[in-house]
Amino acid sequence: MITTEIGHTTQDTITVRGRDLAKDLMGNIDFVDGLVLCAFNRLPSLAEKNVLNAILVIGLDHGLTPSAIVARLTYLGAPEALNGAVAAGLLGAGTRFLGTTERAAKQFLEYSDRMDASQSEDEREAVALELIARRLERKETLYGYGHPIHKQVDPRVARLRQIVKDNGFYGKNWMLADAVGAALMARPKPLSTNASAAMGATIADMKLHPTMGVALMLVGRCAGLIAHVVEEQENPIGQEIWDLVLSQDERNELPERPER
Amino acid sequence: MITTEIGHTTQDTITVRGRDLAKDLMGNIDFVDGLVLCAFNRLPSLAEKNVLNAILVIGLDHGLTPSAIVARLTYLGAPEALNGAVAAGLLGAGTRFLGTTERAAKQFLEYSDRMDASQSEDEREAVALELIARRLERKETLYGYGHPIHKQVDPRVARLRQIVKDNGFYGKNWMLADAVGAALMARPKPLSTNASAAMGATIADMKLHPTMGVALMLVGRCAGLIAHVVEEQENPIGQEIWDLVLSQDERNELPERPER
Amino acid sequence: MITTEIGHTTQDTITVRGRDLAKDLMGNIDFVDGLVLCAFNRLPSLAEKNVLNAILVIGLDHGLTPSAIVARLTYLGAPEALNGAVAAGLLGAGTRFLGTTERAAKQFLEYSDRMDASQSEDEREAVALELIARRLERKETLYGYGHPIHKQVDPRVARLRQIVKDNGFYGKNWMLADAVGAALMARPKPLSTNASAAMGATIADMKLHPTMGVALMLVGRCAGLIAHVVEEQENPIGQEIWDLVLSQDERNELPERPER
Amino acid sequence: MITTEIGHTTQDTITVRGRDLAKDLMGNIDFVDGLVLCAFNRLPSLAEKNVLNAILVIGLDHGLTPSAIVARLTYLGAPEALNGAVAAGLLGAGTRFLGTTERAAKQFLEYSDRMDASQSEDEREAVALELIARRLERKETLYGYGHPIHKQVDPRVARLRQIVKDNGFYGKNWMLADAVGAALMARPKPLSTNASAAMGATIADMKLHPTMGVALMLVGRCAGLIAHVVEEQENPIGQEIWDLVLSQDERNELPERPER
Repeated sequence: MITTEIGHTTQDTITVRGRDLAKDLMGNIDFVDGLVLCAFNRLPSLAEKNVLNAILVIGLDHGLTPSAIVARLTYLGAPEALNGAVAAGLLGAGTRFLGTTERAAKQFLEYSDRMDASQSEDEREAVALELIARRLERKETLYGYGHPIHKQVDPRVARLRQIVKDNGFYGKNWMLADAVGAALMARPKPLSTNASAAMGATIADMKLHPTMGVALMLVGRCAGLIAHVVEEQENPIGQEIWDLVLSQDERNELPERPER
Repeated sequence: MITTEIGHTTQDTITVRGRDLAKDLMGNIDFVDGLVLCAFNRLPSLAEKNVLNAILVIGLDHGLTPSAIVARLTYLGAPEALNGAVAAGLLGAGTRFLGTTERAAKQFLEYSDRMDASQSEDEREAVALELIARRLERKETLYGYGHPIHKQVDPRVARLRQIVKDNGFYGKNWMLADAVGAALMARPKPLSTNASAAMGATIADMKLHPTMGVALMLVGRCAGLIAHVVEEQENPIGQEIWDLVLSQDERNELPERPER
Repeated sequence: MITTEIGHTTQDTITVRGRDLAKDLMGNIDFVDGLVLCAFNRLPSLAEKNVLNAILVIGLDHGLTPSAIVARLTYLGAPEALNGAVAAGLLGAGTRFLGTTERAAKQFLEYSDRMDASQSEDEREAVALELIARRLERKETLYGYGHPIHKQVDPRVARLRQIVKDNGFYGKNWMLADAVGAALMARPKPLSTNASAAMGATIADMKLHPTMGVALMLVGRCAGLIAHVVEEQENPIGQEIWDLVLSQDERNELPERPER
Repeated sequence: MITTEIGHTTQDTITVRGRDLAKDLMGNIDFVDGLVLCAFNRLPSLAEKNVLNAILVIGLDHGLTPSAIVARLTYLGAPEALNGAVAAGLLGAGTRFLGTTERAAKQFLEYSDRMDASQSEDEREAVALELIARRLERKETLYGYGHPIHKQVDPRVARLRQIVKDNGFYGKNWMLADAVGAALMARPKPLSTNASAAMGATIADMKLHPTMGVALMLVGRCAGLIAHVVEEQENPIGQEIWDLVLSQDERNELPERPER
């Protein structure tokens, strides 16, 4: 039968997860409650919400990322469809950016049942080294380590670790992520732990569906891209970005632009 | 100069609206704070957050909407790219669904400076009738009235009005929306006020940028679509929807499917 | 009834516009035949195909347009989903780029029944001036004139006019487009006729559905974007574009990159 | 350096692959020539064009596929942005539909250097069985076999094989695809060879970049989706599809709709 447990509708009611949207939900729950309710048919604890909010805030934005540039250039051609600009920005959330959180979560879950706080550091390092060795051997991407900009240290990692600990979720997956990170920093070409590893480990330790890794990034970035479009409406830089790119190849010749 | 005030990045810091993401924001603000901060460079008041959360909860989902069906059918063909399924669902947020909130806000803002709580009901009705008449005359869509399912009453409208009043935002745009709604219900073919009118009036009365109309719907629906994809991973209905559509035209002939 | 005249399917046949795909179409028609057959349930004449091919070739590509930059930056984050990169690029085909052809066609069709080869040049100019005046008065975009790069002359216009004449389609809409173009070049701030005007007039004179304006651009650009993704696979420039944009604001600080 | 070999632009010229778009290309080459020129910097032979056209015609459309339903439901909500509806439809071209051609090409290329027309049928079967066994063993998808509708025979396969032979491209990859197909039909639960296998083998035998597998499907389907949007403008079925899906769950209650 074609049906969903997420919601249904009649002429005068809307039901979400068995609750009346207008009477039971609006005004009584906040957005993060609603996100968890829709996805998992339960409300989150306060500790969960603290961590989920931290992850959503990470996803929001940090300047002219590829997704923001994409949204602005799309808006340049199609200002009538803000949703198209946002959707275009989200299409870059894949195996290399943003979508990596989900994959990092799965990567840790494959090995983390062998981790244990009672183990010696050497024992934990052994699991981490096996994870690294087997992924390299199988030519699989090692998700969550190295970053094109934050080469030495990704500032989000330590902060998220602290928030996770403060809310009681630091567990086997974070232990593993940290052990992998330590091993990779000890290499001749060190790789720093990035936010995807931190968020992936968090999602795994919270026992959330790994899909929440990419899900939270999409929701957070959706909000961030809207800020970019709002700014683009008032201080557009799309045409300048285009001109800048064209100007790198001397075969292109642009007309002079008036100063802004 | 190509720059954004939203954020910038160095090798060891990420700055969002002048604040250090790791030190100042993560763990200190929630997602809705972050959304407002990114878009408008200020934090929202508690009253604002109450209303914004109610709007985001409206946007979340309510079962098999076109955007949810689109996300599920996209996932059926491309399960490797959850972001593509979500982006596809958001592409339907346009002038007829979801995107109408922004347009409703603009529609009310064009006339609402003529509204005033001290006016008689007749004076307010006159403004409402002018809005209706001029939009019809100019062949412009009348945003926020009528609904393919909630023909008599959209249950979200009264509830949102109450929340807006409780938080001190009920103002000229809501007065106008209500006066337009009363005029349209008095017609031979009555049109009910729908959630887009309610949300559009709310955004206008909160003095938010009208773009927040579509923005909040995109963020809310982004979260709702993720719930659909999570459910589709476990209880897929995409193939059944496809079969169902094909079965309506007898020229199509499908093979028998095993019972699920 | 839910049905389409475009095609249907059984376990052992696929029918497109009443013809057997495998037996009647594959090997017997080319892609442009198929495009017209699907959209209009007839095959094109040779003269039509000559013009449609010229328009599709215009749409293909010309270097690092916004759509190409968008596709490359999307591919940078999500190399697993080439279709997402192409879809992102197409999302910029709106009221300012690419999608303007459809709007130009409609703009000419509104006035062109008043054009006639037997009119004097002055009579034709009068219609052109009325089109310009009324669109400006109604604050409507004047589609097809002015270009951010081809400020003096868009090289595609004269060539397409010639191809249209050679194939017997030069008619009232082209006359109008040319008269509008002449009037706009005579202004203090001259605006050149761009390819959208030329293609829009062509589509109108061929009596094709105006939607074919954006349709042919989407098909052409789809092919062009694929070339960009193929090149990006071998000689990636996505990361460099991102770095270049970030480098414009001194608040951003990037790590040093090795020479390529 | 940020540059592309595909094209560049000056104020009065557009260059595509070193040729002047207006002078050398428009009117002299057709769309399929242009597609190959952009992607590979050479013009195709007539034999290549025959096969490429057959593949593009396969991609066009065949009724209410998931991509067509997605495009129509997206258009229902956002009729102002035809490009969004088409982009949404293309987002479903992934590892299960449409995008499978590329993956099938790669799958055959991994083993086909061991195929040879001088081998006995038994020797060729051995290679096919090894391909099947190793993909199953590594839990990789076996691309190109089985179809949700064409369970016995996909009518496009035999026709494309013939066209490929007629144009002199039948080679090792097709031999392998056919041997795999024979082996899979001999199983207790037979799987038919589908169009993805046929097109993937074709692309491999033509020594085209495997990316052309998904590329040609995207271009073909782009044209097909436009036909659906054109039809949807005149005979809309989007709302009916939505109603139909909702009607499957008795918890949903729709208002009565007037007969059309």
